[in-house]
Amino acid sequence: MIPIVCFVGRTNAGKTSVLEKVIADFKSRGYRLAVVKHDVHGFELDREGKDSWKLKQAGATEVILSSPSKVGIIRDVESDTPLDEIRARYVGQVDLIIAEGYKRDSHPKVEVSREEVSRELLCGPDDNLIAVISDYAVATDAACFGLDETSKLVDFLADRFLQDDRKRLVRLRVNGRSIHLKDFVQEAIAGTLRGLVSTLRGARDPKSILVEVDGEDRGEEKD
Amino acid sequence: MIPIVCFVGRTNAGKTSVLEKVIADFKSRGYRLAVVKHDVHGFELDREGKDSWKLKQAGATEVILSSPSKVGIIRDVESDTPLDEIRARYVGQVDLIIAEGYKRDSHPKVEVSREEVSRELLCGPDDNLIAVISDYAVATDAACFGLDETSKLVDFLADRFLQDDRKRLVRLRVNGRSIHLKDFVQEAIAGTLRGLVSTLRGARDPKSILVEVDGEDRGEEKD
Repeated sequence: MIPIVCFVGRTNAGKTSVLEKVIADFKSRGYRLAVVKHDVHGFELDREGKDSWKLKQAGATEVILSSPSKVGIIRDVESDTPLDEIRARYVGQVDLIIAEGYKRDSHPKVEVSREEVSRELLCGPDDNLIAVISDYAVATDAACFGLDETSKLVDFLADRFLQDDRKRLVRLRVNGRSIHLKDFVQEAIAGTLRGLVSTLRGARDPKSILVEVDGEDRGEEKD
Repeated sequence: MIPIVCFVGRTNAGKTSVLEKVIADFKSRGYRLAVVKHDVHGFELDREGKDSWKLKQAGATEVILSSPSKVGIIRDVESDTPLDEIRARYVGQVDLIIAEGYKRDSHPKVEVSREEVSRELLCGPDDNLIAVISDYAVATDAACFGLDETSKLVDFLADRFLQDDRKRLVRLRVNGRSIHLKDFVQEAIAGTLRGLVSTLRGARDPKSILVEVDGEDRGEEKD
C-alpha cells in the first residue's frame, strides 16, 4: 500500500513553500509522488468558457482531458473523499502520497510551524505527529527540523516510509542520500557488477555485493 | 464494459454546441456521462501561481484536488492514452463515455457537419460512422439527424448503447422517452407496485407488471 503523510500547519505557516522543496527533493532522488490537496471550499480547476468547462456545465459527471504528456480529470462526487479512498481510487503508480491538510485524518503528520504565526502547534498528542519543521525550538516528542532542513526531513521520511528500498535488488546511496533506481536500472547495475566481480579470483558466483566508494558513507549499507 | 461513442467533425462544424445539448439531454434522462476530450497540443487545467500548480511544478507526478463536491486530478503520462485505457484506468461509474475527437479510434462515431464549413464528411467508409448530425442532406448509410434533432440522436444512441435498460427491474418511459432509474428507485417502485397490485383480486403474486398511463406511449413496453 502506498504510504500517506499529511503536511499540516496554520494559515501562513508556509506549508506550500516547504512542500515545494520536499517534493523537488524526493523527485531528485527518483521517487514519484502524488500530492493531495484538500479544499473544503471547492476549487475551480477548469476555466469558465473553455470547451471542457462547457461540457462539464452541460451535465457530464466526469470530464477527462487527455494529451500526450498529461491526463486531467474532473469528477463530481457526493461527499468529501477520505484519504484512504483517494489512494484506492485515484492514485496511480507513485512511491509516496503527500497530503496537504487533512489534520483530522489518522495518517502520520508533519507540522510546519513558524514563530511569527504561532508558537503553539496545531497537532495535539493524539494527532499522530511524527515531525515538526519550524523556525524556532519546539518542545515535542516528534522529530524536529529547521525550515532550511527539508533535505533532512526527506531523509527522515524516506527512511520511515520508503522501506521497500531495503528489499530492492540494488540500493544506492550517494553522498549519504538514498537514490531511488528504476527496476531495469537496478538490473543493469546488478548485472554489470556481477559480471565484473565474477571475473575476480574467489568470486565465481557473486550473489550479494557491497561496494563502497570513498568510504564516507558506511551508515546503512550492511547486507 | 461502458460503451464509448466518439463525436468527430471538422473545425468549426459545431461539435461542442451539439455535445452540450446531447450531454444535457442524457443527463435529463438520468444517465451519467463521462466526456473525454483529446488535446494533442496539451492543455493547462491548473492556473499558474496557484498552490496546486506550484506543487505540480515542484515535481509531483500527480496532483489531486479534493473537495466535498468534486475531485480534480492532473497526472503526468509518457504518451497519448488510448480510449480503451482511459476507460479502464480513469473512468468512474458512468453509463456512457462520449469522446470528442479520436477520429482514428475504432469506436463508433457520430460526425457533426455544417454545410458552411464543408459538405464533405471527415469520416470515410472504414471509420465506423453510425450517425451524422448536420444542417444539410448528407448522402450516407449512417443514421441522419438535423442539427436541431439532438434529442432524436440521443434516442438513437440510448437505444444502441444503453440496452442494459431492457434488463432492468423497472423501465420507465415518460412522454415517449426512457428515464434512467437508480437501482434503489427501481426497487422502491417495483415494491410499491407489487404491494399495490397484490391487493387486487386475481393478482396475488405479481411478478411482471406493465402500467401504462394515458396510453400514448405503447412503443416498446411489452413484457
